[in-house]
Amino acid sequence: MKNKIKRVPKRGHYDVKTINGILDSAMHCHVGFVYEGYPVVIPTAFGRKENTIYIHGSTASRMMKSLADGIEVCLTVTKLNGIVLAKSAFHHSMNYESVVIFGKAKKIESGHEKLEALKAFSDHLIPGRWEEVRLPNEKEMKATMVLKLEVDDSSAKIRTGGPVEDKADEQLPIWSGVLPIQTHYEQPVPAEKNRSLPPSVSQFYSGLKT
Amino acid sequence: MKNKIKRVPKRGHYDVKTINGILDSAMHCHVGFVYEGYPVVIPTAFGRKENTIYIHGSTASRMMKSLADGIEVCLTVTKLNGIVLAKSAFHHSMNYESVVIFGKAKKIESGHEKLEALKAFSDHLIPGRWEEVRLPNEKEMKATMVLKLEVDDSSAKIRTGGPVEDKADEQLPIWSGVLPIQTHYEQPVPAEKNRSLPPSVSQFYSGLKT
Repeated sequence: MKNKIKRVPKRGHYDVKTINGILDSAMHCHVGFVYEGYPVVIPTAFGRKENTIYIHGSTASRMMKSLADGIEVCLTVTKLNGIVLAKSAFHHSMNYESVVIFGKAKKIESGHEKLEALKAFSDHLIPGRWEEVRLPNEKEMKATMVLKLEVDDSSAKIRTGGPVEDKADEQLPIWSGVLPIQTHYEQPVPAEKNRSLPPSVSQFYSGLKT
Repeated sequence: MKNKIKRVPKRGHYDVKTINGILDSAMHCHVGFVYEGYPVVIPTAFGRKENTIYIHGSTASRMMKSLADGIEVCLTVTKLNGIVLAKSAFHHSMNYESVVIFGKAKKIESGHEKLEALKAFSDHLIPGRWEEVRLPNEKEMKATMVLKLEVDDSSAKIRTGGPVEDKADEQLPIWSGVLPIQTHYEQPVPAEKNRSLPPSVSQFYSGLKT
């Protein structure tokens, strides 16, 4: 198992619920692979359905072509939740949740499975959008490669809470605590005037006035 | 040059100002390296001073020990700025800014350079904090490894703006546009009562009432 958390093992988690919770709250991942001997890390969106992660891209993409060959991949998802400020420089830290998945991606060949995967991908990013849009035609399906990766060899790492201080620092008159980080959606920017907001978008922005 | 943007080349940028702007607006990066033949991608904080990126970690960390050996590394920084919603599923996209840096990390041996690097690291994360805290002692300096990576072989990729539609889709009665994503700080959570907020923290939270 590649995924045993060695540094600060108490932050390690291996249960599916924790891992899926982090995966589902993130919009993108970083995919690492070895290309001509050197490591490459590319950000990309992803979807999940049960135990499978989907990524997609152009059939012309270097990353997609490399991964379709069945090489080893590392897919990492990270959410930063706060800066942890201690009284000492040394004990500064970050609150975060991350998931690391190791495995081999596999190209989806079947048209039916590919469409299902693209729906899972779309649902992950913005639930309900798939039902609102013009679905992929044959030409678009051909231009899109979808890869799947099983979530087998995976682990999560989570840090929460306030700073840890050295005993000797506790009385120092220095502010310590956490500066929380939050990601949110802002008011949608329509491409056209006078079209009412669809359910898929309005769910992210309650109180919106168009 | 590894870093020539091949997919959607008009999104590629190679000037220092653009690259540094993205680096400086991000709090963390993803570091990729090859470990026993397979790719590993780990999220970590970083600092920048001029043309040098600093990452740090425990001298006991597998990542730090591997990188200190001078192996190839890929350091990627990504900021998601929005979900781009088109009338067709196919033309959905993300607005983002990313930087990919290839190179070899180098361990900093000199104590003076290490301290300077840690200050740059701290300044990157939260400007002014270094001047407020108890600085590293000898034991802490020994327990911390700092690596530097020169920003030579690097590129940025940026997507902005609204959706691109197929001509045939333009008249479809489907909402299209951008759902902007913003990351912000929330009200600081103090570890102790009755200590006033330091300048380093209050700069992130104007209008704060403690």
